[in-house]
Amino acid sequence: MMRLRVIFPSARKVYPDKEVELRTATLRNFCGPNTQLEFSYPDEGETFKQNLTWDDFIKAIPHFVLAAKQAEAEGVDAIMIHCVYDPGYEEIRRAVKIPVVGFGQAVFNAALQIAPRFGIIAPNDSLLKEANDVMDQYRVRDRLAHMEPLNVQLPEAHLRGEELRRRSVDIARRCREKGAGVVIPFGMALIPTHLRTEDIRESAGIPVLNPAQIGIREAEIIMEAVA
Amino acid sequence: MMRLRVIFPSARKVYPDKEVELRTATLRNFCGPNTQLEFSYPDEGETFKQNLTWDDFIKAIPHFVLAAKQAEAEGVDAIMIHCVYDPGYEEIRRAVKIPVVGFGQAVFNAALQIAPRFGIIAPNDSLLKEANDVMDQYRVRDRLAHMEPLNVQLPEAHLRGEELRRRSVDIARRCREKGAGVVIPFGMALIPTHLRTEDIRESAGIPVLNPAQIGIREAEIIMEAVA
Repeated sequence: MMRLRVIFPSARKVYPDKEVELRTATLRNFCGPNTQLEFSYPDEGETFKQNLTWDDFIKAIPHFVLAAKQAEAEGVDAIMIHCVYDPGYEEIRRAVKIPVVGFGQAVFNAALQIAPRFGIIAPNDSLLKEANDVMDQYRVRDRLAHMEPLNVQLPEAHLRGEELRRRSVDIARRCREKGAGVVIPFGMALIPTHLRTEDIRESAGIPVLNPAQIGIREAEIIMEAVA
Repeated sequence: MMRLRVIFPSARKVYPDKEVELRTATLRNFCGPNTQLEFSYPDEGETFKQNLTWDDFIKAIPHFVLAAKQAEAEGVDAIMIHCVYDPGYEEIRRAVKIPVVGFGQAVFNAALQIAPRFGIIAPNDSLLKEANDVMDQYRVRDRLAHMEPLNVQLPEAHLRGEELRRRSVDIARRCREKGAGVVIPFGMALIPTHLRTEDIRESAGIPVLNPAQIGIREAEIIMEAVA
């Protein structure tokens, strides 16, 4: 049995119970029979909020590192942060010896093997610069065909399902028109937590990657490789 | 059921039956229950030989492309070339619409999620420059801690098992001493076909990735993502 611990980006008290249920169920869906999926939270950090900016992540990163160290001390086999932006990825990796698997890194790697150019459904205008930073970090920015933000606020996602679906499909279609062969939904909190990637794909006619599915499967490969 | 076709880098007549049996068994080992693993060969191409150089691959690449087109026409879901150098990867991808998964790309991606720097057990002096080219292609050369060639000729591998094992362990140890956190064996034909990565790891004390295992699992993620 391999222990994979996913660290949420906000403190536990920030999330409504329903949001936690949805996120954990979404990830459990993709675990193989040998994976024990665990969850933990930083002591501080608020990224599930209106008008989220990267400053909110910066404040939380030291607490992600502490949560990662605790996971290592407790004997888990690999760590992930529940966010496609892979916040704190480098800082956490310097702090622990066990593998740190990025949902973002995993999904970019998959995208590049599916098509030469990808599109991105971004969460918000306020995080567009950082979406470019993540592409730079993984050296894939030149493969971007089109990117556009949803601008549906995280805490309102459960109230705005139809708008979320419609905007996602519109953006995915434009990605296809602009030469993308595959679409990456960025964030994890909106897609695939509140909207299934299959629903976007069916209407938009282009493969839409599921970062939860790909990240969990990639973590399983990694854990198996170093077991 | 998903159909994954692995194209060997040489024409069928070039390989002894025993070599084909070993290679296909090594890959089948790592397939999940929903993968139908198929093999094919280019009409021309000789890379299983003494003093292999990149020129041998260059001559074969047009035939890899033809074999890939045929695979697509026959309805397979994804294609791989049986070589960690991913020969012809870009050319094949331009020629077909289905995913082309690289053993090399997959194993580099895994290595980067395991440790900040990797070491490489290279096959031959004659392919060292091209090992650097592949790292450039995937933009990971700055993560290399140490690389050293085995210099055990491919067609002699079955006769020189103990030397292959000893040299692999020595190189993996030096990778560890020079700061690598994980070792990538390059080639596929020598390792893992003729030497198990577990045998190197146990003696060298550093994780040694299995490109066959990681590549097949990665291809399964990709096929599932676009299914």
